[in-house]
Amino acid sequence: MLIKYLKNFRWDGIEQKPYKTEDGSFLNVKRFEIVKGNDSEFRYFEISKGGYSSIEKHEHEHIVVFVKGKGYVLINDKIFEVEPFDVIYIPSWTIHRFIAKDEDIGFFCIVKKDRDRPQKLNDDEIRKLVENNPNLSEFFKEKL
Amino acid sequence: MLIKYLKNFRWDGIEQKPYKTEDGSFLNVKRFEIVKGNDSEFRYFEISKGGYSSIEKHEHEHIVVFVKGKGYVLINDKIFEVEPFDVIYIPSWTIHRFIAKDEDIGFFCIVKKDRDRPQKLNDDEIRKLVENNPNLSEFFKEKL
Repeated sequence: MLIKYLKNFRWDGIEQKPYKTEDGSFLNVKRFEIVKGNDSEFRYFEISKGGYSSIEKHEHEHIVVFVKGKGYVLINDKIFEVEPFDVIYIPSWTIHRFIAKDEDIGFFCIVKKDRDRPQKLNDDEIRKLVENNPNLSEFFKEKL
Repeated sequence: MLIKYLKNFRWDGIEQKPYKTEDGSFLNVKRFEIVKGNDSEFRYFEISKGGYSSIEKHEHEHIVVFVKGKGYVLINDKIFEVEPFDVIYIPSWTIHRFIAKDEDIGFFCIVKKDRDRPQKLNDDEIRKLVENNPNLSEFFKEKL
């Protein structure tokens, strides 16, 4: 089965879906499910400037390929700058967030089909993270 | 863990590996294992002009993202032209081959970690495939 690329990171027949139920834990995130396979799912996410995904952790791993823009990713208590074709491996139970600070960003994210639900960090956990590394504060819009 | 992209579809610290044991079933294929995760593996393959991967089938599925060049993919008895950012889903037991007819090609290929070994098609099976669709013959270098 061939899913044809159109342009500007859109694919033929693949509609935008809600990223998650709106709960204030994320901003400006678009989600596209390109392949829902039997083993794995292959999704494209786009975050417009100023936006960010939820800070979360879970048992299942992520393999991420950055493809659009220059962005940032939080991995546990460290921030990394990421650019197109950088690959990010998020092992089990690693805290992570994707951040579009300066421009729109886009990335592929691969997960196994049968997976646990993400666990969002609560305000206390986020506060501790920033206490341990004050450089992180600009990447958290949550009230701390 | 961040695997930095260098340029020309090469990543920092990721070395070329043999595609498979040399057996005449493929030509001009380079393999790079970018992430060997617990759930999934994320690989980059490059096939230089005139080359092709083995014709094979297996229980595990492939999710493929084309990223370099214009190439061809055989899916069961049909040939599709593929270009960068086209996504290809190869379900369980689907016959497939990737072909670099006119130029060098490159693609990401995602598989689950625990998977069966590919089964190569034998000459009889290939002959039948081409009998059913004579347009395929130019994509098979094997003696028919």
